[in-house]
Amino acid sequence: MIIALDAMGGDYAPSAIVEGAVEALNEYEDLEIILVGDERAITKELLGKQFPSLRVKINHAPEAVGMGESPMAAIRKKNSSIRKAIDLVKAGEAHAVVSAGHSGVVMALALIVLGASTGVDRPAIGALMPTFKKPFLLIDAGANVDSTPANLFQFALMGNAFAKHILGRPSPRVAILSIGEEESKGNELTKESFKLIQPAGLNFMGNIEGKDLFAGEADVVVCDGFVGNIVLKTSEGLAETVIKMLKQEIGSLPTGRLGYLFIKKALRGFKKKTDYAEYGGAPLLGINGTCIISHGRSTSKAIKNAVKIAAEFSRKKMFEIIREEINSKNAMLPLKGNTVAAG
Amino acid sequence: MIIALDAMGGDYAPSAIVEGAVEALNEYEDLEIILVGDERAITKELLGKQFPSLRVKINHAPEAVGMGESPMAAIRKKNSSIRKAIDLVKAGEAHAVVSAGHSGVVMALALIVLGASTGVDRPAIGALMPTFKKPFLLIDAGANVDSTPANLFQFALMGNAFAKHILGRPSPRVAILSIGEEESKGNELTKESFKLIQPAGLNFMGNIEGKDLFAGEADVVVCDGFVGNIVLKTSEGLAETVIKMLKQEIGSLPTGRLGYLFIKKALRGFKKKTDYAEYGGAPLLGINGTCIISHGRSTSKAIKNAVKIAAEFSRKKMFEIIREEINSKNAMLPLKGNTVAAG
Repeated sequence: MIIALDAMGGDYAPSAIVEGAVEALNEYEDLEIILVGDERAITKELLGKQFPSLRVKINHAPEAVGMGESPMAAIRKKNSSIRKAIDLVKAGEAHAVVSAGHSGVVMALALIVLGASTGVDRPAIGALMPTFKKPFLLIDAGANVDSTPANLFQFALMGNAFAKHILGRPSPRVAILSIGEEESKGNELTKESFKLIQPAGLNFMGNIEGKDLFAGEADVVVCDGFVGNIVLKTSEGLAETVIKMLKQEIGSLPTGRLGYLFIKKALRGFKKKTDYAEYGGAPLLGINGTCIISHGRSTSKAIKNAVKIAAEFSRKKMFEIIREEINSKNAMLPLKGNTVAAG
Repeated sequence: MIIALDAMGGDYAPSAIVEGAVEALNEYEDLEIILVGDERAITKELLGKQFPSLRVKINHAPEAVGMGESPMAAIRKKNSSIRKAIDLVKAGEAHAVVSAGHSGVVMALALIVLGASTGVDRPAIGALMPTFKKPFLLIDAGANVDSTPANLFQFALMGNAFAKHILGRPSPRVAILSIGEEESKGNELTKESFKLIQPAGLNFMGNIEGKDLFAGEADVVVCDGFVGNIVLKTSEGLAETVIKMLKQEIGSLPTGRLGYLFIKKALRGFKKKTDYAEYGGAPLLGINGTCIISHGRSTSKAIKNAVKIAAEFSRKKMFEIIREEINSKNAMLPLKGNTVAAG
């Protein structure tokens, strides 16, 4: 498997990215990585590191995209590291692309260069969310806002295919994120989506409420990308805050220092289970190719894991499976494509 | 202050409700409580309890509303405890109403019986959310779905008035919950709302992302009730899950039992800071009267605190302050009321 890796994207680029690539190469023998970005910067990072040099290439990209940059301007750059990494997949020179760069730009360019899968109206981000039991796939975690019921129908199909073939859940439990379990609870979007998804032959469990998300009963949770992104980021912020508040509470006790020593390991175990770095990144589902969008704060470990899942998804032909799933069921939509109105 | 308390609403009614009333009466000397519900059940709960009996009345309501009941049917019941408790406020026999019953039914009846404040298109639920610093008000936490920009504009005004006069924040920082800080980030609703709220003369900090909610920088966070309810319930579920996962991690260590003893107090301190029972309930803002919607799982402590804030809001003439705030700024809306479309 050949992975095109945007070496310039993310808060700790290029050092964390190159370090992550080296870790991945040393751990997985069937991997080749093309580091895309400023050749000089990448070479400097590689210097003195131990790695199988035959399995690394550098593809020079003279431009980078800043995190605060206007997406419209960034998308037009023909020589950015994001663009050139995606181009490699399009040209068949890489099997998958990984970037921790500006996620809006990565999404837009993946869609422009690789295109949406036949039959998919809107590609979506699938984010794995840790729970008390096993993780579930939140889809859409932020690729689209103002989605239609037909979009959510397709998110359900894509999520179902992902959960079955990538997560290995034989009959994934699919739910719509809403504000009550009954079909009648929710907004226009969820109520109309319910009607479309219910007869689609999935293991549909109906609506799920926010309070039940982390109990781990669902395998796939479907929502508009605005809501999904808010759930994703609120959860991230809250989990960090809870730990911070607990540490503060522990510190304020007379036995604080000792107590902290006792639970240090537990906190580490918890962090490992909930850390985004363990998942590496979120796939953009519904495009013609494998594209992993990593967290802006990606560490080398996150990048290593992102490269690993990119290879895995590509090997399992994830995007072809999704295309088939969509095309076998799109006929169930009352009107073709995203013309089903949210109202 | 006279509080009408729905004695039959909530998972632990009537015992937790009556117990909460007794605690409130013993703690606050200026309170009178009218317990509304099945007279026999209430009398039985009161038996043997110590409390100032001159400050308690029972108002018999022969019907109750079940948590799983159809809201449409429940709203039509003229003799339910929820209805009769709200009727007491309408009749001027109580200053405020508190219910831990079916929240959709409480909202609907409060709106039908008491009416929306002049100029308010949609009353909204304001929920206090704990953060690392001070709590913020999330508005709307679930009264409305599919809100318009004009609705969000009014939520911002109501939240601002609440934060200033009830939370005592001299210049409340008001934000819109969105998926990026820039004005251009969000869905149609947030982008249009941004344009309305920005010039309204509030201490407007722009958009806030989910990850920053719990840092405690904002005093008021404005959103559609669908999104707000999902944020509220996701946070509740996640905080519980984090604690559960941590306990599990601690328990799996060889030093587990000892470690747990050390942090038990810290967990208790954390729980106190984040427990919904500390806030008692969420006010329905924008109606002609004071109505507190308590959590279905309300304990006696939650009810005691709900009664306390009901008296406080009523004493501070909260609903009149909100009406004035709305009416002084409604003229800023380009079109009157909620006719500004979300698209």
